[in-house]
Amino acid sequence: LDIPVTNKRKIVNDPVYGFINIESELFFDVIEHPWFQRLRRIRQLGLTSMVYPGANHTRFQHALGALHLMQQAVAVIRSKGHEISDAEAEAVCLAILLHDIGHGPFSHALEHSLIENNNHEKLSEWLMDGLNQTFDGKLSLAIDIFKNKYTKPFLHQLISSQLDMDRLDYLLRDSFFTGVAEGVVGSERIIKMLNVHDGNLVVEAKGIYSIEKFLIARRLMYWQVYLHKTVLSAENLLVKILQRAKELALNGDKLFATPALDFFLNHRFDEKVDANLQQQIIEQFVLLDDTDVLASLKVWMKHSDPLLAKLCQNCTNRKLYKIEIQNDPFTAEQINAKKALVMQQFGVSENVVNYLVVDGNISNNMYDVHDSRITILYNDGRITDLSEASDILGYDVVLKAITKYYMCYPKEIVKK
Amino acid sequence: LDIPVTNKRKIVNDPVYGFINIESELFFDVIEHPWFQRLRRIRQLGLTSMVYPGANHTRFQHALGALHLMQQAVAVIRSKGHEISDAEAEAVCLAILLHDIGHGPFSHALEHSLIENNNHEKLSEWLMDGLNQTFDGKLSLAIDIFKNKYTKPFLHQLISSQLDMDRLDYLLRDSFFTGVAEGVVGSERIIKMLNVHDGNLVVEAKGIYSIEKFLIARRLMYWQVYLHKTVLSAENLLVKILQRAKELALNGDKLFATPALDFFLNHRFDEKVDANLQQQIIEQFVLLDDTDVLASLKVWMKHSDPLLAKLCQNCTNRKLYKIEIQNDPFTAEQINAKKALVMQQFGVSENVVNYLVVDGNISNNMYDVHDSRITILYNDGRITDLSEASDILGYDVVLKAITKYYMCYPKEIVKK
Amino acid sequence: LDIPVTNKRKIVNDPVYGFINIESELFFDVIEHPWFQRLRRIRQLGLTSMVYPGANHTRFQHALGALHLMQQAVAVIRSKGHEISDAEAEAVCLAILLHDIGHGPFSHALEHSLIENNNHEKLSEWLMDGLNQTFDGKLSLAIDIFKNKYTKPFLHQLISSQLDMDRLDYLLRDSFFTGVAEGVVGSERIIKMLNVHDGNLVVEAKGIYSIEKFLIARRLMYWQVYLHKTVLSAENLLVKILQRAKELALNGDKLFATPALDFFLNHRFDEKVDANLQQQIIEQFVLLDDTDVLASLKVWMKHSDPLLAKLCQNCTNRKLYKIEIQNDPFTAEQINAKKALVMQQFGVSENVVNYLVVDGNISNNMYDVHDSRITILYNDGRITDLSEASDILGYDVVLKAITKYYMCYPKEIVKK
Amino acid sequence: LDIPVTNKRKIVNDPVYGFINIESELFFDVIEHPWFQRLRRIRQLGLTSMVYPGANHTRFQHALGALHLMQQAVAVIRSKGHEISDAEAEAVCLAILLHDIGHGPFSHALEHSLIENNNHEKLSEWLMDGLNQTFDGKLSLAIDIFKNKYTKPFLHQLISSQLDMDRLDYLLRDSFFTGVAEGVVGSERIIKMLNVHDGNLVVEAKGIYSIEKFLIARRLMYWQVYLHKTVLSAENLLVKILQRAKELALNGDKLFATPALDFFLNHRFDEKVDANLQQQIIEQFVLLDDTDVLASLKVWMKHSDPLLAKLCQNCTNRKLYKIEIQNDPFTAEQINAKKALVMQQFGVSENVVNYLVVDGNISNNMYDVHDSRITILYNDGRITDLSEASDILGYDVVLKAITKYYMCYPKEIVKK
Repeated sequence: LDIPVTNKRKIVNDPVYGFINIESELFFDVIEHPWFQRLRRIRQLGLTSMVYPGANHTRFQHALGALHLMQQAVAVIRSKGHEISDAEAEAVCLAILLHDIGHGPFSHALEHSLIENNNHEKLSEWLMDGLNQTFDGKLSLAIDIFKNKYTKPFLHQLISSQLDMDRLDYLLRDSFFTGVAEGVVGSERIIKMLNVHDGNLVVEAKGIYSIEKFLIARRLMYWQVYLHKTVLSAENLLVKILQRAKELALNGDKLFATPALDFFLNHRFDEKVDANLQQQIIEQFVLLDDTDVLASLKVWMKHSDPLLAKLCQNCTNRKLYKIEIQNDPFTAEQINAKKALVMQQFGVSENVVNYLVVDGNISNNMYDVHDSRITILYNDGRITDLSEASDILGYDVVLKAITKYYMCYPKEIVKK
Repeated sequence: LDIPVTNKRKIVNDPVYGFINIESELFFDVIEHPWFQRLRRIRQLGLTSMVYPGANHTRFQHALGALHLMQQAVAVIRSKGHEISDAEAEAVCLAILLHDIGHGPFSHALEHSLIENNNHEKLSEWLMDGLNQTFDGKLSLAIDIFKNKYTKPFLHQLISSQLDMDRLDYLLRDSFFTGVAEGVVGSERIIKMLNVHDGNLVVEAKGIYSIEKFLIARRLMYWQVYLHKTVLSAENLLVKILQRAKELALNGDKLFATPALDFFLNHRFDEKVDANLQQQIIEQFVLLDDTDVLASLKVWMKHSDPLLAKLCQNCTNRKLYKIEIQNDPFTAEQINAKKALVMQQFGVSENVVNYLVVDGNISNNMYDVHDSRITILYNDGRITDLSEASDILGYDVVLKAITKYYMCYPKEIVKK
Repeated sequence: LDIPVTNKRKIVNDPVYGFINIESELFFDVIEHPWFQRLRRIRQLGLTSMVYPGANHTRFQHALGALHLMQQAVAVIRSKGHEISDAEAEAVCLAILLHDIGHGPFSHALEHSLIENNNHEKLSEWLMDGLNQTFDGKLSLAIDIFKNKYTKPFLHQLISSQLDMDRLDYLLRDSFFTGVAEGVVGSERIIKMLNVHDGNLVVEAKGIYSIEKFLIARRLMYWQVYLHKTVLSAENLLVKILQRAKELALNGDKLFATPALDFFLNHRFDEKVDANLQQQIIEQFVLLDDTDVLASLKVWMKHSDPLLAKLCQNCTNRKLYKIEIQNDPFTAEQINAKKALVMQQFGVSENVVNYLVVDGNISNNMYDVHDSRITILYNDGRITDLSEASDILGYDVVLKAITKYYMCYPKEIVKK
Repeated sequence: LDIPVTNKRKIVNDPVYGFINIESELFFDVIEHPWFQRLRRIRQLGLTSMVYPGANHTRFQHALGALHLMQQAVAVIRSKGHEISDAEAEAVCLAILLHDIGHGPFSHALEHSLIENNNHEKLSEWLMDGLNQTFDGKLSLAIDIFKNKYTKPFLHQLISSQLDMDRLDYLLRDSFFTGVAEGVVGSERIIKMLNVHDGNLVVEAKGIYSIEKFLIARRLMYWQVYLHKTVLSAENLLVKILQRAKELALNGDKLFATPALDFFLNHRFDEKVDANLQQQIIEQFVLLDDTDVLASLKVWMKHSDPLLAKLCQNCTNRKLYKIEIQNDPFTAEQINAKKALVMQQFGVSENVVNYLVVDGNISNNMYDVHDSRITILYNDGRITDLSEASDILGYDVVLKAITKYYMCYPKEIVKK
């Protein structure tokens, strides 16, 4: 944000939108806070850059991008005659700026390895509350809107719904940086079509085509990026590395690690966390980012545990698991057969084979937890659900959850 | 590079060019090598993302991009009737792929702190030779072209000249990811205008406007990105941090560091390096990337040396030096006066103040070391230097070196 | 095409692709011919610019664009090991260059008014044969490929199939110039995925997502542009104007018209055309373009026939019919009721009311006359129809013909 | 403008900006007026499409684009705390919408042939006054601003100055449609940097790089488009055709022409025009557009005057003059020698040769009639002229007028 300042307004260059205006000094002060600056060191898409080399964009960039869209959305909705007070406008912008503050590095991997039972949402709450104290309660309204405790539902819907600013930014940004042109979303076009009806966020009828294209682009992004075979393979490899490292650490093995990573490797967290531990978690968490994980992982390539060493060599040098993906679950027989084969060929124990043969499933509705719908507003004041308005697509087809089942195992097995 | 394979050809998505074809299996094998994969973890522009948050693109992306342009350039020059054998084509592509293999993390900072007397070029040579052994001598012709020891000078000029593929990619790519639209370069347009005359690379006359715009865009990139005040301030801060860390390490202080970084902190390198030490340097260097530096630097925020701790806090949380830039050198009086003021206000010693008040100069010709010119080829076969062909610009103005002098010092001093 | 010439190669600037190379002198000579130059004066989308003001691009631009894509397609298919001789390459490029040579101004309107029983295809054939004579038979192979009389079916499929270069250019170009971003097609991406299998054009499996997006974009273009209500209304108005003018002319009325337009107003053409008349038709047809129609129409605004005058005023000043569109045919009762209302309110005769109340239907399969399918080629050599390969869309849904029924009538009637 | 209407706001698709909002009903009503609709049939760049086939964009598109930028500029300037009343905002937008209303088809050619002594500015005034009557005086403030008779000079400067919305749109738009990427201007970026100081339009210091790039892009557009040899050749050919046609008409020859063109062919206009004639001129002028000229010109290809016929064949079929361009005037000797040669080779009279050998000059300052400068505003409130602020360019070099001298003559002469 080092930009010439005029009248206390800041402008940031952004490859996606050109310029991003930081419209309030408070936004700027929040961005300057070390807890927010930390997002500069956390990539939005974790290991996806192993498949799409351009995907190095950070959560910091995404948060600014979502702020940019929110500022536009506020202006559009106001221009259509709906009142948003200055306090509400500032709060909804702060809420989107902070919506990802609780994310750690490689967050899906972390949730499955280092930070048991303490999910992203809980950390998110702790950090927002902490910042609110630092900023003398100026974030209270933002937090209320974020938690959907405020009287104007459309404000929350701008943060969390089928067409929220989070999604409109990340789909466009992820498409932009991966270079997956099929996923490009007309976010700024869609925002021009937003409106409010009975307190809820709606889309004007003339925006139907843009929405249809948005839904298709989103689906293509799932197939080409979020559920990409090799991305899944890399993420599972990282999960297994961190699980193994934690297993070793908790067994008393001395692993090289940065202090923040060391803390999470050496603690197993219950669901109940007392105030003292909570404080420790926060202190270490805000120091943890991609570099802790990646730098430690490189050192572990020479660790005395051959399993950990091998997994880390594979990850660092991009020798990933072979992965099979299918629409139905793998049977226990299939998985056990693969494990038996690996145990035999590699001469490893049952404990070890669980790090080499990995199964699981993934569905796109992790992004669709909010079961909200998209509502269309016609010129004559009628509203209808998009599923009825659409001439072109089977809307339900597009939104329906896809679950995919996968099994990963060492590439070498194939060759034998 | 995990892409469906047809007939052994690979395609990579790239946000700048759309798709990049990897036209030869040997290119692919080189890219897969751990020494090359390491470039995934080294950002092209170091700390520039502190000013331009989008500038997280890596040397890996740049190397693939330069390969893409080289493949195009070879096709264009062949289509104009100049012979490039398949072996030459492969070699010139390999040479551009490997041209940055010797870069370490934050390379300008490293040269001024950790790797004395061993510049980028020497490491580059060692690593290329090492890879050539691994690949059974298949890189020999590429290395000859790289070193300008081959009989067709235009091949070397495609790698290193005013219009080489390195430059055509990085200017476009840096502009793209910083979001500095003023710097956008029509690299693919320029390549279509390349030709060969008397064995040398030339530009056809119809490309003059594209070249003029390229030179202007390049100059704007210097002003807006490469010589940006805050970028310089951040880079100087990193240099001082690494110098202080090395000073402490060589004095026997125990610092947290990854093993690779530890090696460079604890060795001071003479100009002469024996074979044994050379081997050690290579082994550690290829493990060193951005994450080693950034992760260690975060740990040093709590180091017992208050100077190192303070500098690292400033860097991690983006509290940079105040910087003044001017066209003439700062006088010894000016610098000493500033140091005296800092010593007095902060109560620090003469040794310490040299980490707090930093002066230096920078010029754009570090990018223009090759004193080559741009030659224009007319339809009638005449050639001329661009400086005479240009109707629009003062060409010499555009190419002339700019030297800027700067002085950095703590922001806090201003307020007192 | 006035571009500096080097080695007899020409380059044309094009907003869509940047540069278009004219790779053969024969292409250039064909482009220079007055019959081809005439395409400069015929807009690709007729009256669509009344709705999308940017849609002023011409059939000339489209023909060059399709040539550009064909040149790329030939290079891609050759690079995958399939032989295309130089003569075949030139012929398939000539065929795409000439594929629209038989189009007149506002061609759909013309077919329904001035040129009865002589469709675009017949004129196309006459003009191609005429040019072939002028060019000493050098177009013979191109004409064979165009007519699908050549032994390599994929060459014809590049000109006429679900993924031909005609379609890949016009969808992208129409989207570009209308500004309908939802319709943007990755034509150059798709071409990189083309291949040949058993002599037929196929798409490699890695291109499935691009094809899916292409089909969606195509469908969105139908809804937003080709079947747009106001575009239909304007086209029907033009049809009625030309029918009325011809009715008056054949009744001996003296209308202002350019000589070429005058010829078509004063002749009614049977299905059988003798050699003499054919010669006359060709001579006049190649002089007819958008300007003849638009300039004459402006003059008719003051014609003594009040119906013709009114229709022309409405068209020139953009006072179009009110139009209703629905999925089912309008009943005879509905249409007659509307006609009765108009006759009563405007006091006009039954003959006149047929110019004021217009019904008809339109379906998107006018663009899909070739019943070809899209075939996917997998890495293992298997092929399958896209409908089976697609995970994402209902392919049949996308390709299925849509028929829409419309009724147009004067706007003024609504207000009464 | 047929777009679904919500709350009386209209949106138009535009390839350059995506969407253009028509923010006021009055703007919409003005756009709907036949005098404005006529701009749909007048291309912005006349015969430039003979060189750049994409350059078919109309004055209608440009007027909407300039309106779009003006609406943005008003919002930006208001957001920086400068008052612009709603009436002033509407007026300055109307003024830019109407700034080209007085342009005829091929306007430079017309001024040198058909409409002597009655320049574009006078017609502009008549038409604006006429529209103001039609709209009950609602355009009065707009006309005052247009004529620089209003008390806030920055409003006029938004319409007519070095950085007015006219120029910011046409440079970007002409670059976009010609496909001359070197000329692309960051118009929307520049507008974000506009501000007002002491009542005058200024640019904030952080916009200097954008301005520098704008000036370079503008210069490149002159060289590549506005002063392009072949464009000049085509325009001179059209001037000569219209002069010859008028010479024949005034001598009593009966030429085919649309009534509007016929009027201008058969009248020679003095500087003084009485009210009756003024009325006639307006009536005919608003019916005249590109189609009248182009359609008539095609008919004249068979006119009995061999000179007119030949010139028209050359223009329609794109057989243009050979043109020489140089920095110094051609001497009388040079021109007379060329004329003598043509007279001898073609056996033509002295009168005729003046249509075949044409000399003249052109300078880029026809676009720079307003001698205004660009003023930079620094954060500390200082202002300075750009020429002093610029680090990069010789600003005066960029702005200085270029005059070029040319001589056109038949291509055939070269071959003999």
